[in-house]
Amino acid sequence: MEMDLNAQEKKEGFFQRLKDFSSKFKDGVTKRIKNVQKFGKDDPRRIIHSMKVGVALTLVSLLYYVRPLYISFGVSGMWAILTVVVVFEFTVGGTLSKGLNRGFATLVAGALGVGAVHLARFFGHQGEPIILGMLVFSLGAAATFSRFFPRIKQRYDYGALIFILTFSMVAVSGYRTDEILVMAYQRLFTILIGGTICILVSIFVCPVWAGEDLHKMIANNINKLANYLEGFEGEYFPLSDKISKDTNSCAREYKSILTSKGTEDTLANLARWEPGHGRFRLRHPWKKYLKVAGLVRQCAFHFEILNGYVLSNHKAPEEFQSKIQEPIATMSREAGEALKAIVKSIKTMSKDDTASVNAHIDNSKKAIKSLRIALKSSYPETEKDLLEIIPGVTMASILIEVVNCVEKISEAVEEFSGLAHFKENLAPKLSAEIGQHQLLHKGSVKPVLDGDNEEEDNSSPHVLITVYDEQPPTTTGKNYLGAEKN
Amino acid sequence: MEMDLNAQEKKEGFFQRLKDFSSKFKDGVTKRIKNVQKFGKDDPRRIIHSMKVGVALTLVSLLYYVRPLYISFGVSGMWAILTVVVVFEFTVGGTLSKGLNRGFATLVAGALGVGAVHLARFFGHQGEPIILGMLVFSLGAAATFSRFFPRIKQRYDYGALIFILTFSMVAVSGYRTDEILVMAYQRLFTILIGGTICILVSIFVCPVWAGEDLHKMIANNINKLANYLEGFEGEYFPLSDKISKDTNSCAREYKSILTSKGTEDTLANLARWEPGHGRFRLRHPWKKYLKVAGLVRQCAFHFEILNGYVLSNHKAPEEFQSKIQEPIATMSREAGEALKAIVKSIKTMSKDDTASVNAHIDNSKKAIKSLRIALKSSYPETEKDLLEIIPGVTMASILIEVVNCVEKISEAVEEFSGLAHFKENLAPKLSAEIGQHQLLHKGSVKPVLDGDNEEEDNSSPHVLITVYDEQPPTTTGKNYLGAEKN
Repeated sequence: MEMDLNAQEKKEGFFQRLKDFSSKFKDGVTKRIKNVQKFGKDDPRRIIHSMKVGVALTLVSLLYYVRPLYISFGVSGMWAILTVVVVFEFTVGGTLSKGLNRGFATLVAGALGVGAVHLARFFGHQGEPIILGMLVFSLGAAATFSRFFPRIKQRYDYGALIFILTFSMVAVSGYRTDEILVMAYQRLFTILIGGTICILVSIFVCPVWAGEDLHKMIANNINKLANYLEGFEGEYFPLSDKISKDTNSCAREYKSILTSKGTEDTLANLARWEPGHGRFRLRHPWKKYLKVAGLVRQCAFHFEILNGYVLSNHKAPEEFQSKIQEPIATMSREAGEALKAIVKSIKTMSKDDTASVNAHIDNSKKAIKSLRIALKSSYPETEKDLLEIIPGVTMASILIEVVNCVEKISEAVEEFSGLAHFKENLAPKLSAEIGQHQLLHKGSVKPVLDGDNEEEDNSSPHVLITVYDEQPPTTTGKNYLGAEKN
Repeated sequence: MEMDLNAQEKKEGFFQRLKDFSSKFKDGVTKRIKNVQKFGKDDPRRIIHSMKVGVALTLVSLLYYVRPLYISFGVSGMWAILTVVVVFEFTVGGTLSKGLNRGFATLVAGALGVGAVHLARFFGHQGEPIILGMLVFSLGAAATFSRFFPRIKQRYDYGALIFILTFSMVAVSGYRTDEILVMAYQRLFTILIGGTICILVSIFVCPVWAGEDLHKMIANNINKLANYLEGFEGEYFPLSDKISKDTNSCAREYKSILTSKGTEDTLANLARWEPGHGRFRLRHPWKKYLKVAGLVRQCAFHFEILNGYVLSNHKAPEEFQSKIQEPIATMSREAGEALKAIVKSIKTMSKDDTASVNAHIDNSKKAIKSLRIALKSSYPETEKDLLEIIPGVTMASILIEVVNCVEKISEAVEEFSGLAHFKENLAPKLSAEIGQHQLLHKGSVKPVLDGDNEEEDNSSPHVLITVYDEQPPTTTGKNYLGAEKN
């Protein structure tokens, strides 16, 4: 009886587990499908790219399906398929780089291979494989070694690979066939067909430009820095209810910049293969992006250290904190706004915001001076106090370095904007000047040493007194407002 | 007459330029050859790898040269050559990963391709290419899309590529040939031959293990950190002639760590494909290396910020500097020595140095306390002083964070050493304990607040008073010395 019950239980347990498993399996599958959908939606270009590969594959298949084509190329058509599969990359630059590498390497290696076969035939049927083997060994080893050199690795790695491949194939199969020239010609021609299809589909069907990706990536990275700086006050002074807490979510975005060098280098490399497109000319200074990117990363390194102080529980005493809060907040906010203006100028590829960038940086620097005054005024009363304010002082020091970093970024972008032919407009320039006057007001009129300012609401609009430091702008009020909306 | 002279001059000028050019060309060539030689000498494994590729290529060529082999495989032998060229990678892990991916993908895609051809034949001669085209399009697009998923991209990217390639080829050429099974079999078999030759040559002829490279890389990176810390005093207090200046050369080595994440990730990925070898078992915790590497990079970020203060001309006043020099020097030196001990423990894969690591870290922490006392004693006399000591205070703060980083690294390595089965010996452990006693002496007996200590020679040996904090060690003097030599 007990045994029966046990068996019953076991049976029920088994069915239960089967049920559990099937429902879990179902959940897993739906979850996975949703993941895939989300992944496609995140960047629909991925789906489009997959379709493009499918189209290119179907097109080269015609070499087999269409009788006249099959008669001229025969089984060599498979080289076109192979070429499409290995050459078609996500970006135009990637496809061009691989396609051109493959084309050139095949041409050179094919010619050398035919030459090697003819040379080897002088040595008779016994000597031929020995000579061919030696040639394949030495050229293969030399080309493999060349792939280690950084310069070749960067731009011609695939070409070297295809060189080894083609030379070995032509040289070795030349031993067994007399129609080596016909074979080499057919192969070269089908590879050209495959490569051309890839390049055409890649450029003319929803192209993905590596250069544009790089451009956007740099702008986005600077934007991430700006987000961190704008959310900094709220993060570091969590007691103040001045800043809303929803900035936190994007505050850690900067972390991706710490390790983005590889992607940037790759994109810059591929971008150099691309023809002029859209706003980018043929000789766009792609390499210069890397300089800006390096400075951006330097800034992110500083954030990483700052973060330790933001997250730390051992902050300086409240009194000290409240004294430095105002200048710290202005420094980070203005530096953040300078970065936002830089982002805008990169995104629109115009120099309109240069004045605004400089104004924000100036404000930020003025805030550094206020900070120094605040620090002086918070002169420690006892020895113990000095130790207590150290975390706050360190944080402030690093933030000053961040402002320097932001200035360097702005200089690099300005230098770069000249090389990249950023456009210059008059009207927005004036608006930027107006902005500067306003900002001068915003940054310096406020009392700096107002100590405890917990009640003051910083997010409320400033009193609209316009303080011009030189001459009043000559634009009309309408223009002024219009530009402000920009 | 003048014309003649001019012509003469021009002629001479031309010959001069030709001479210049030829000598420049010669110099360029010799320089390049020297570069290549140096490049090969820097890592002779590159030359060996190139030779190995040559050998593998020559071996697969035999499929053509040897008549019985050619009779059985025919032109399919070229797939073996293709496989060798594209599968043979620098590391064993890379070759195994590509080889296995290629083998499996070919098997699966080949089977599916044959199935697709048989299915398509049901639809008659007209429908066949349409069905085949649709299948090639949809499977090609789906496999291309799958390559975007990080998990697949990381480990099976090449497999997906080969899947598309093989399926398309089999499906498309199946339309024109009836001997599709024979063809698929020949191709699969030659690919297996090529892959096997690659894997065998890669493993048994001077293998380059990705895992070992990763292991060495992490140890070297920690060593770079240690070098920076050991040279820190000389860098930051350049007036003191205590420390020789030749440490400078290796002080900036740490910069390579800032961007080494890509290489580390790749190596860890490849290492997981490798069988057990040497000191590494099959399931060696390769992923854990990345955790240690992340902490090492975090430490390098701190150095990057520290560096700004080291290179800055606005250092704190000399009096203040001399007060903090002693604890700062001890902190950085002891942290550096802790890292050196960690490097040794990683390199020897033993836990012998754990005690020594902890002792150095403890000393470093004690120096932090001394630093706090020094800071207290350097209480600013005027408001201006507070501003002046800020750079020094910031530098000290960051250095404290570095010590925390070092402690985290040591913890991570200790956790890791358990998982990686680091060996444990008795004798060196005792020696480490002795070392600890000695180090306790070294770190804490010295007077901390001796202020101006310019004349004191830190590099001279310490007075050999042994201060034991628990019990004297039970080892004999001989053992003690022997272990010290270790």
